[in-house]
Amino acid sequence: MVDAPDDDEPGVAQVRRVEWIGERASSGDDELAREEPLELRVAGVSIAVVMRTPGHDLELARGFALTERIVAHPAEIVSVRHCDRVEAPEAEDNVVQLVLADEVVVDLVRLRRNLFASSSCGVCGKASIEQAMSCATPLVSTGSVEMAVLRELPQRLRAGQRLFDRTGGLHGAALCDETGTPLVVREDVGRHNAVDKVVGWAATQRAWPPAGEMLAISGRISFEIVQKALAAGIATIVAVSAPTSLAVALAEQSGITLVGFVRGDRACVYSHAARVR
Amino acid sequence: MVDAPDDDEPGVAQVRRVEWIGERASSGDDELAREEPLELRVAGVSIAVVMRTPGHDLELARGFALTERIVAHPAEIVSVRHCDRVEAPEAEDNVVQLVLADEVVVDLVRLRRNLFASSSCGVCGKASIEQAMSCATPLVSTGSVEMAVLRELPQRLRAGQRLFDRTGGLHGAALCDETGTPLVVREDVGRHNAVDKVVGWAATQRAWPPAGEMLAISGRISFEIVQKALAAGIATIVAVSAPTSLAVALAEQSGITLVGFVRGDRACVYSHAARVR
Repeated sequence: MVDAPDDDEPGVAQVRRVEWIGERASSGDDELAREEPLELRVAGVSIAVVMRTPGHDLELARGFALTERIVAHPAEIVSVRHCDRVEAPEAEDNVVQLVLADEVVVDLVRLRRNLFASSSCGVCGKASIEQAMSCATPLVSTGSVEMAVLRELPQRLRAGQRLFDRTGGLHGAALCDETGTPLVVREDVGRHNAVDKVVGWAATQRAWPPAGEMLAISGRISFEIVQKALAAGIATIVAVSAPTSLAVALAEQSGITLVGFVRGDRACVYSHAARVR
Repeated sequence: MVDAPDDDEPGVAQVRRVEWIGERASSGDDELAREEPLELRVAGVSIAVVMRTPGHDLELARGFALTERIVAHPAEIVSVRHCDRVEAPEAEDNVVQLVLADEVVVDLVRLRRNLFASSSCGVCGKASIEQAMSCATPLVSTGSVEMAVLRELPQRLRAGQRLFDRTGGLHGAALCDETGTPLVVREDVGRHNAVDKVVGWAATQRAWPPAGEMLAISGRISFEIVQKALAAGIATIVAVSAPTSLAVALAEQSGITLVGFVRGDRACVYSHAARVR
């Protein structure tokens, strides 16, 4: 049974459930990650609905606009706010309105095609990479990164995953500075949403494009994550788990250093390994 | 550097990478999960592109058609095959053509809206659930399931995850019979694809709709996974990790027993707990 959300924390829901330990079953309370749709609108038109964990919705909207390349720069986003006049009152928290600069033309067909195709447009890996790179500038990675710093990122991300501690069911993303200090940690049922929240935060809180910041994520690195990092100008991605083949290929071509399996004293560098010292 | 796929196994790619152990860095070979787009066509029209791990593409296409409710019954799928005449030769493996029965009307607008919205159509949880249930019959769970059987499913799934052993980067799904014996195990970079492959297999190999079969998945249980199980008529879902609030709410309303955190001697039943004995 799913009850109302926790008043203090929109990302968590209270539930009743039956817990079995060995042969004994007992009913009790538990906390789960909330999942709700969020609709993004530009000029009154719905441009996307994403399933997300409520909380930091405005950052999510801002980050989504940047990583899906609806806008090319944070300055093109004039305002972001929850709609206060939607059809159903219970949906009020789930609709966000973006106001963009006059000169921005939203290509809804391209956007839908992107989302429709899980952010890929081709029907082979090569075409997917070409499409991802067609609207982004390859990153010229200046400066090196220290393995000793990279190695710390997963546990620093994990230490900031407050809701994961309560629910066990959320992905996390952190933006860290060159010393490995987390600038922001965000959580979501969708790993891509957690990245968008982090990027949306950076869009208003940091110089743009990011210079030297690193992205740490829980779990795996898919093509979509690398594409989002590229659109946000982040040149280093670190994860606890494995990348996919297409994630590595895109990272290689776009100047991103991709580090996976960062566990204990082990770490694997899959692209631009010369940057790591 | 990403090389050609392994000849014997389309789901795995060979890569060169730098492995750090403590202070020592050495270059070596590694295997990663392949990720490539797959385009699904009906009557020559593209209906979806999904990022998937190559292998069992025809099952994926068949399962997708069922779980996204393009068809209501496997018998409405006349044939499924790879296209041999596509624009680019390298894309040949990535385009699948579905031939549907004459009476099937594909509602592309609804489908796109579904996919676009990560399988949700409303802008609140309630609307998402209503939409998911509008085209599916709630499952009337006859028969009970034994906790002793449920508890075994994660390790039985894991034992069948052949590619995970090699790459560490794939989700898994298994369809198991009432005794907990896996009938089929499928792997993919996308958890929803792994479920679609399993459903696509069942569509030709088992009686339809499934009766008594259980779905075991690696990782978490999101709304989308429950929606796919509902469309496929599977009344029991078991996972190692946590469900989301909306996954539990949909399971509750649609007659699905949802079991999470199945680890060691612990298991949590989030819906229709009375079926578990």
